[in-house]
Amino acid sequence: MNVNGKPFRSIWADASERSVHIIDQTRLPFSFVTTELATRDQVAHAIRSMQVRGAPLIGVAAAFGVALAMQADASDAALEDSISVLQATRPTAVNLAWALVAMRKHLQPVAPSARAEAAWRLANQLADEDVATNEAIGLHGMKILQARQQQLGRTLNVLTHCNAGWLATVDWGTALAVIYKAHDAGVPLHVWVDETRPRNQGLLTAWELRGHGVPHTYIVDNAGGHLMQHRKVDLVLVGADRVSRTGDVANKIGTYLKALAARDNDIPFYAALPVSTIDPTLKNALAEIEIEERAETEVRTIIGLRGENASEAAPVLVLDAKSSVSNPGFDITPSRLVTGIITERGVFAPNQLATGLSI
Amino acid sequence: MNVNGKPFRSIWADASERSVHIIDQTRLPFSFVTTELATRDQVAHAIRSMQVRGAPLIGVAAAFGVALAMQADASDAALEDSISVLQATRPTAVNLAWALVAMRKHLQPVAPSARAEAAWRLANQLADEDVATNEAIGLHGMKILQARQQQLGRTLNVLTHCNAGWLATVDWGTALAVIYKAHDAGVPLHVWVDETRPRNQGLLTAWELRGHGVPHTYIVDNAGGHLMQHRKVDLVLVGADRVSRTGDVANKIGTYLKALAARDNDIPFYAALPVSTIDPTLKNALAEIEIEERAETEVRTIIGLRGENASEAAPVLVLDAKSSVSNPGFDITPSRLVTGIITERGVFAPNQLATGLSI
Repeated sequence: MNVNGKPFRSIWADASERSVHIIDQTRLPFSFVTTELATRDQVAHAIRSMQVRGAPLIGVAAAFGVALAMQADASDAALEDSISVLQATRPTAVNLAWALVAMRKHLQPVAPSARAEAAWRLANQLADEDVATNEAIGLHGMKILQARQQQLGRTLNVLTHCNAGWLATVDWGTALAVIYKAHDAGVPLHVWVDETRPRNQGLLTAWELRGHGVPHTYIVDNAGGHLMQHRKVDLVLVGADRVSRTGDVANKIGTYLKALAARDNDIPFYAALPVSTIDPTLKNALAEIEIEERAETEVRTIIGLRGENASEAAPVLVLDAKSSVSNPGFDITPSRLVTGIITERGVFAPNQLATGLSI
Repeated sequence: MNVNGKPFRSIWADASERSVHIIDQTRLPFSFVTTELATRDQVAHAIRSMQVRGAPLIGVAAAFGVALAMQADASDAALEDSISVLQATRPTAVNLAWALVAMRKHLQPVAPSARAEAAWRLANQLADEDVATNEAIGLHGMKILQARQQQLGRTLNVLTHCNAGWLATVDWGTALAVIYKAHDAGVPLHVWVDETRPRNQGLLTAWELRGHGVPHTYIVDNAGGHLMQHRKVDLVLVGADRVSRTGDVANKIGTYLKALAARDNDIPFYAALPVSTIDPTLKNALAEIEIEERAETEVRTIIGLRGENASEAAPVLVLDAKSSVSNPGFDITPSRLVTGIITERGVFAPNQLATGLSI
């Protein structure tokens, strides 16, 4: 997507193929800064610290991390070691595991002398495939928005949680790919953007939507239920970090609350995601997924602008150490609350997902 | 309640009866500052800016505001004018209207020369009654926590939203009165404290609970559903800003989402409030209550500590003017999601409220 008129992806290989570049998402929306990563450990740090974030993007970032590792040491041991280090950075996202499995499968049979080149090739291919996948998700999902808007005959109000935009993927996004495709096709729409505490990824979503000219309104996470009660939301659309074969959706903490409110008010709830986000081994996400408990500092501090002309981004401390904090990163929206799963291979009711995709 | 070992109320008349003192809640939890209010307009400003907040407290504050007005001008016109100015400060809270109606009814028959004294007397009486009322709410509600804890045979986990503590009343609180009475009676309990964006009243709740030695954990508003799915919440307990005769609960924005999650996980949901919070004219809160849309700045900026040793409280800007903001202050939890209403006159199922209280 364009940033100030110049096309960007969220990650790209340097022309030298000795490093990768990322947009540092911890600096957004306050500063647009790109960072060069030259080692596996720099990639691992970028994933852990959420300089890159979003299930599809961290899969691709991890693939580039393996390529950087192979460049330094292409032995079998180094391959396994890099996979295990990168896998440990974000336990919940299944795309990370998926990308690393793909890298291992592809690289194990390759002689160490040829591994670095093969790794770069596959990582670049995974990045390109992600872009194509997301565009396909956007086109499938667009038809749902078009149909709903035509049914209503007025501007469509879509609520989204977290950032499932181009920043969360290599390009286009998942949930926001649907929004972009619909907006580009002339569907009149407006997006309610959940702030998404503790990390306020709603700021990224708002930043993306302004960049693309999509009308939107930023709200605190508490507001969505009220808006739904008053028919100000026509459809809820989110991304996902992991989806069970039965259609349970693991996504950013708070998604479940919005799905409950959508159901209570007869509003459709969709998740948009690549097929690689679906974990075919998973039957009951609530029982089987261990939810990542993230750092307390995400809750205790908030980054904002201060200083002359509000130009300096810095954290402030909102809660000191005298009170305990818990910070679960994700929750599970059970399939019974999900209207449909939008993928690059079409849209499926949760109970049709496994048969529809033959998984 | 005690602050650093010294007993405080959240509002009290100066010994001279020429002014009132409040705890400036916009400075908490970062600084404990008391402020003297000497005019009706200073009281109106304190309510509007949420230096005093919480349905019961703003009722009492408004009563003191009338007393200050009568001191300056005790005419019929000044009485009506002060009631209308104070009523306009916070449209949703019914206690405000209730206290102002009580003041008008009491003062209209009094000769202007005696009005100021009568107004002070009634305002002080309303403050004392609020304390007694809240203590009674605490004792009635305590029995529910005791029973639930005994049933479970382990530490009881209670989730609360916003601040319904002594700071929101003259003393004791409503929902937190129940917590304090149970804690003081030896019921082992732990409180999940919702942050309560946009104004982070969870910080006030955490500050109160530490002051009283009640174990607690601060969470973002998105986390409660996940905790309930994993049986980490045994009971949800909130205050209220207005309750219909049918048991619908208007409370801080986000309450409805927690009530939905409680119902989805078979967890009891209680609201604790004085009978004065019940609006006997209200049958369907969702249809009949106009929800206060509050200032955008509450969403765009967050106050935290910065500087050397994180000692200076100041706002940071998290979202600039390039994205729109909506900031509804309250939502409605329909009575079908409410297990019980805890009042100073006992605990009632929502459908028993009107008959139980003969309203």
